[in-house]
Amino acid sequence: MRCWFTLLLFFAVASASSGTAAEQRPRARDVGVVIGTMSPGPHNAITDVDGVGIGHATLVEGTRLHTGVTAIVPHAGNMFRQRVPAAIVVGNGFGKLAGITQVQELGEIETPILLTGTLSTWKVADAAVDWLLRQPGMENVRSINPVVGETNDGYLSDIRARPLTPALVEQALTRLSYGDVQEGDVGAGAGTVAFGWKGGIGTSSRHLAESDGGYTVGVLVQSNFGGQLTIAGVPVWKSLPDPAEYARSLKVPPPSTGDGSIMMVVATDAPLDAANLQRLARRALVGLARTGSVMSNGSGDYVIAFSTAKENLRDPDVSVQPARSVAGEAMTPLFEATAEATEEAIVNSLFRAHTVHGNRGTAAALPLKPVLDALRRAGALSPAKPHGK
Amino acid sequence: MRCWFTLLLFFAVASASSGTAAEQRPRARDVGVVIGTMSPGPHNAITDVDGVGIGHATLVEGTRLHTGVTAIVPHAGNMFRQRVPAAIVVGNGFGKLAGITQVQELGEIETPILLTGTLSTWKVADAAVDWLLRQPGMENVRSINPVVGETNDGYLSDIRARPLTPALVEQALTRLSYGDVQEGDVGAGAGTVAFGWKGGIGTSSRHLAESDGGYTVGVLVQSNFGGQLTIAGVPVWKSLPDPAEYARSLKVPPPSTGDGSIMMVVATDAPLDAANLQRLARRALVGLARTGSVMSNGSGDYVIAFSTAKENLRDPDVSVQPARSVAGEAMTPLFEATAEATEEAIVNSLFRAHTVHGNRGTAAALPLKPVLDALRRAGALSPAKPHGK
Amino acid sequence: MRCWFTLLLFFAVASASSGTAAEQRPRARDVGVVIGTMSPGPHNAITDVDGVGIGHATLVEGTRLHTGVTAIVPHAGNMFRQRVPAAIVVGNGFGKLAGITQVQELGEIETPILLTGTLSTWKVADAAVDWLLRQPGMENVRSINPVVGETNDGYLSDIRARPLTPALVEQALTRLSYGDVQEGDVGAGAGTVAFGWKGGIGTSSRHLAESDGGYTVGVLVQSNFGGQLTIAGVPVWKSLPDPAEYARSLKVPPPSTGDGSIMMVVATDAPLDAANLQRLARRALVGLARTGSVMSNGSGDYVIAFSTAKENLRDPDVSVQPARSVAGEAMTPLFEATAEATEEAIVNSLFRAHTVHGNRGTAAALPLKPVLDALRRAGALSPAKPHGK
Amino acid sequence: MRCWFTLLLFFAVASASSGTAAEQRPRARDVGVVIGTMSPGPHNAITDVDGVGIGHATLVEGTRLHTGVTAIVPHAGNMFRQRVPAAIVVGNGFGKLAGITQVQELGEIETPILLTGTLSTWKVADAAVDWLLRQPGMENVRSINPVVGETNDGYLSDIRARPLTPALVEQALTRLSYGDVQEGDVGAGAGTVAFGWKGGIGTSSRHLAESDGGYTVGVLVQSNFGGQLTIAGVPVWKSLPDPAEYARSLKVPPPSTGDGSIMMVVATDAPLDAANLQRLARRALVGLARTGSVMSNGSGDYVIAFSTAKENLRDPDVSVQPARSVAGEAMTPLFEATAEATEEAIVNSLFRAHTVHGNRGTAAALPLKPVLDALRRAGALSPAKPHGK
Repeated sequence: MRCWFTLLLFFAVASASSGTAAEQRPRARDVGVVIGTMSPGPHNAITDVDGVGIGHATLVEGTRLHTGVTAIVPHAGNMFRQRVPAAIVVGNGFGKLAGITQVQELGEIETPILLTGTLSTWKVADAAVDWLLRQPGMENVRSINPVVGETNDGYLSDIRARPLTPALVEQALTRLSYGDVQEGDVGAGAGTVAFGWKGGIGTSSRHLAESDGGYTVGVLVQSNFGGQLTIAGVPVWKSLPDPAEYARSLKVPPPSTGDGSIMMVVATDAPLDAANLQRLARRALVGLARTGSVMSNGSGDYVIAFSTAKENLRDPDVSVQPARSVAGEAMTPLFEATAEATEEAIVNSLFRAHTVHGNRGTAAALPLKPVLDALRRAGALSPAKPHGK
Repeated sequence: MRCWFTLLLFFAVASASSGTAAEQRPRARDVGVVIGTMSPGPHNAITDVDGVGIGHATLVEGTRLHTGVTAIVPHAGNMFRQRVPAAIVVGNGFGKLAGITQVQELGEIETPILLTGTLSTWKVADAAVDWLLRQPGMENVRSINPVVGETNDGYLSDIRARPLTPALVEQALTRLSYGDVQEGDVGAGAGTVAFGWKGGIGTSSRHLAESDGGYTVGVLVQSNFGGQLTIAGVPVWKSLPDPAEYARSLKVPPPSTGDGSIMMVVATDAPLDAANLQRLARRALVGLARTGSVMSNGSGDYVIAFSTAKENLRDPDVSVQPARSVAGEAMTPLFEATAEATEEAIVNSLFRAHTVHGNRGTAAALPLKPVLDALRRAGALSPAKPHGK
Repeated sequence: MRCWFTLLLFFAVASASSGTAAEQRPRARDVGVVIGTMSPGPHNAITDVDGVGIGHATLVEGTRLHTGVTAIVPHAGNMFRQRVPAAIVVGNGFGKLAGITQVQELGEIETPILLTGTLSTWKVADAAVDWLLRQPGMENVRSINPVVGETNDGYLSDIRARPLTPALVEQALTRLSYGDVQEGDVGAGAGTVAFGWKGGIGTSSRHLAESDGGYTVGVLVQSNFGGQLTIAGVPVWKSLPDPAEYARSLKVPPPSTGDGSIMMVVATDAPLDAANLQRLARRALVGLARTGSVMSNGSGDYVIAFSTAKENLRDPDVSVQPARSVAGEAMTPLFEATAEATEEAIVNSLFRAHTVHGNRGTAAALPLKPVLDALRRAGALSPAKPHGK
Repeated sequence: MRCWFTLLLFFAVASASSGTAAEQRPRARDVGVVIGTMSPGPHNAITDVDGVGIGHATLVEGTRLHTGVTAIVPHAGNMFRQRVPAAIVVGNGFGKLAGITQVQELGEIETPILLTGTLSTWKVADAAVDWLLRQPGMENVRSINPVVGETNDGYLSDIRARPLTPALVEQALTRLSYGDVQEGDVGAGAGTVAFGWKGGIGTSSRHLAESDGGYTVGVLVQSNFGGQLTIAGVPVWKSLPDPAEYARSLKVPPPSTGDGSIMMVVATDAPLDAANLQRLARRALVGLARTGSVMSNGSGDYVIAFSTAKENLRDPDVSVQPARSVAGEAMTPLFEATAEATEEAIVNSLFRAHTVHGNRGTAAALPLKPVLDALRRAGALSPAKPHGK
């Protein structure tokens, strides 16, 4: 016990002293934490679903502001003219998600998806609408349905200030990555806290065997929730210091014990209609449950799922449209992929996030040493297979 | 007032004396009652949707038993191997509908739909399963989801006796009509009461203009509910005697004032996926509302909708299936057709039903004279256009 | 025909020339249009539910801007500390309603309800949050769930300009009426169009008999939808000029034929829990259906219902709370009251609205002469009983 | 490896030779398998919720029939006159659950809950209705809503025979246990298979700290589903033989690899209204997810939750009823209790079930040795604390 605690302190102080922290923290899989049995795609990210782009805009100002926006852009075309079949599932609805009823009624999403901090939801939605209406071909649009999710970053950031600007929203919408995705304390994850540790953005993907269709499922999460942290089935929370005591040991203010929330975005290139996307989305909650969440009373736990399959993109002006949809037993491997990728995305959000000293206290980066030790003791650690090597 | 009351008495006594009533009562449209503005199909019945068959089995025994089964068979093939996309909507869920969750999960129906009296629901479902499992090609089936709806015929029939037999269920499933449909006090409508009058089975259809797709929507109802009877917008309940007083004037026991329920089945040949069928089904509630129902607390008001479009029939063993679906603005005419056909089907169920002397009292046939007079006074009666001429 | 058309022209021109129109148009009941059979409360308005206040802020600028905000405030206390049990029902979800999932999860509303134009939804929500967070006792609040509904006023108003200001939102939230409510082209109804005519805000209420609990149900709507206008069951649309032709006869640009939407807010002092409020809310759709709507594809039709019963107000810090709830058969009269009040509120929104010359055309006030004539011919007009006299 | 395999064979053959198996298999907790951190009640069973009784009727006939009925009786009074607030949640709806819509509409259950095999659902429901209608005080009841869940025991039992009799249903309803509950291959669990091993009935409970209300939550499951068996986070499936190979090693026909399903019943004495019971029920899916299920396409995964709190029992004839309900943050401990108890109930269903040689093959009892070894290696085994000692 003693040994890792010293190491821990060392890491922590290093981290704490580095402010927004330049040092690179590993992704779970790179240090041998393997969730499930299916294979990830080349980037082990939501961007493995062809065409999906991710944009982050991060706002950090001293300790006071740690917030931001993350955009998930289903394809590079005009989303309003080529809508993606979509569904939204509510795990626990203590949240402010904008845009849900139209998605549920029409089974489609007509804009990029945005994530942010709770009290910025409407400002971000408004800025997104402003930007979208200014795009080419949108001159006569008088109705548009932005989908904006949130979790509460009000512990690390001065949430009541609602400081996000239209420029930051535009930045998230336009500076897109199609390969590796920045994770941790970035974009909408800048100020979130999960299991008492610094959470944030995480992503992962799964590639189905060709015999199962050869589809890809990618998940991106904004983690900000609580519970008893469990990784690959191992109750690592038992091996971790109490986050509050740990913070005090670092002589920093302890983290909030609030409920928090999680936004989960699931993308797939499998041809799915809205009904099957809803079923798929429900399986993200399976992955969530396995990390130790019970979806507490105050949690806003939402899943947004969409399919990028080209043949199913919807032109609003076509009255009868062809579609294909995976059905029946062929759905189960997609369910498994969603559960696994969600679980790993959550773990990545914790592995990658750095210690953040914020407005009302500090959220320390998850101490990886005791986590890995616990996993090793439980026989749950694979030989590290650095990704892409 | 006096004059029609005399006439009424005449009709009523005639009806009352005729037991299960041989005289033909007219359909609404045949005597000038036109609901809405769209055109019905050739039979003005759910059977106008090509392939849909209707079977009735009626059980009448003296005054004690007035119950039965009505089958709605989406197509003549093996339903289990060629499933129809389907949806079920609950207006008010005080009912026992069997089979709903699987239909909602998979968006398909794999058996004929059956209607019956409340306490026979499970017996009928069991008999249907028995029969279905005995059909060719079903030898290895170990799971099947019968869809059985009900309303409560416990006023006119000794409902606690649950007298329906497998033979009657088989009869309903096999003696199918594909043209004109028997309405009123027949099949599952044998013992139902609506607005205090004898209700039962009613049907109607609408054919969309070619510019709207040229689709057909057909509706069949089992009416057993209450409210203030309104026909083509006219509050005819104000012009009708109180059903209870009227019954007493006929020296028969007055009808129940219970809540009752209504089952509505909507068929269409428009290619719709389950999501759009759910939206379509909701519009049957629009037609219901216009007849004077508020979906009272004790009412079980359900809509079952399916599409017979051949290209969308589902083979459970195909993992990716092509489909077409009407979308967007092209749905609105289908919504209108559903509302209109439901409203007219309800009116037909009342127009066609004969007086029934039952187990605990009598439900008189709706007196048509005062109804038609009220409609005429309100300017809501068209010149009679006998159907098919 | 000729005569009323002349009169009509006279009224219309008068109206057209008066800009935002000073002349008082009557409420439906004042000129003998009686919906249903139950009695309204003293103001025949949602404010008959004790404690409910209504605020309007209207923004009119030449012909270009006709928009606004309407606030429905359930009680005069701190809504965040004394939450009202609530439910939201979606008739057709083509809309942007903010706040729905938290209301559905927790069964409560913690803020005033706001209505506005589609593209202002998020700006209004943001301004409301800003104002709410500045109220006494809200200093430490870091999560709040504004409920903002909308319909699309993009025909009469330059909706893409999104011109509403925080000051207007504050005005709607603070200048409350507790008695008579302004209707028609005011507040969030300034720029809406219903059935091709000028729609807007309308309200009505019903008072239950003491034997039914003596409760009050009040409804307020923002009407902006289409269909075949039907009043008290009479298809008055057949007796009305086509709105577009009529506009041309007035030498003004014809109205949009868009889908539109409707927001319906139902208040009651009956002690209801969230589950029963959801059932109540569904019955507003019954009233909507009776006015001629089929909830078209592009319509956003929502019902928000809440109970003001003092014993059921929820303190978020109390872990076990007592409540009372109407149950079972006693719900039916509340259902009927909701259906009737919704239908009459919609009619009032049309009766009270004046002709508006807007950004892309004109929406004429509903010509009352032919409407009343049609109702009279159908025997659906009561002797005028001016309200409160 | 060798050693335990020999032992395993020993156990298996013993078990196999013992037919319906007299030897007692341990409950999970008795051999050191502890799920979660909360304390169970005195029987670690659903019967720890005061008043809840469990009845089993088991039908075994040679190898051909292994089926049965299990009754969960919320209280000893007349359920129809003193209804329990209740909710039903669908995880994946590929099932035939009877009675759901009325429970969802009214938020109450008015009968005992029954579990059985898929194709017996309707026969059992019918028999239950028959029996219920014959009880004292039920002479005038003409509508009743039996709640019957099922999973598919068609591998071990000749499901198409539908052999259950009214006498067996009555037996389940009347021979109730209020203390220890029989688990494993008994009642509705006689013929079910989970994770390729013999599943069946399992139960567990949690008692909340007094500071959290001191409530009890009890869960009973009928396990018949698949996935990668995970116990206390440990992927024991990796340490287990493949069930099919294992069966072959025992020279018995291998088990089905079908989807299966699970019924979960959650009881609590916490005063909860239907809305909060629905939230509670959703947390049973958290426990399910942790055992390795992703709720596969063909699975019927349902949760039925009810509260026995005396003050909330509903008399259908009272129009306004008082109630108390846990709210807000106080719900979270109840959520945790539900997740933990569900997970442990599932594990118990496997631990307690014996090998069954059935109609189409054999489902071996879960080999406990390798399971316990795997748990021990992962550090997930507590020192055995035999229950109640």
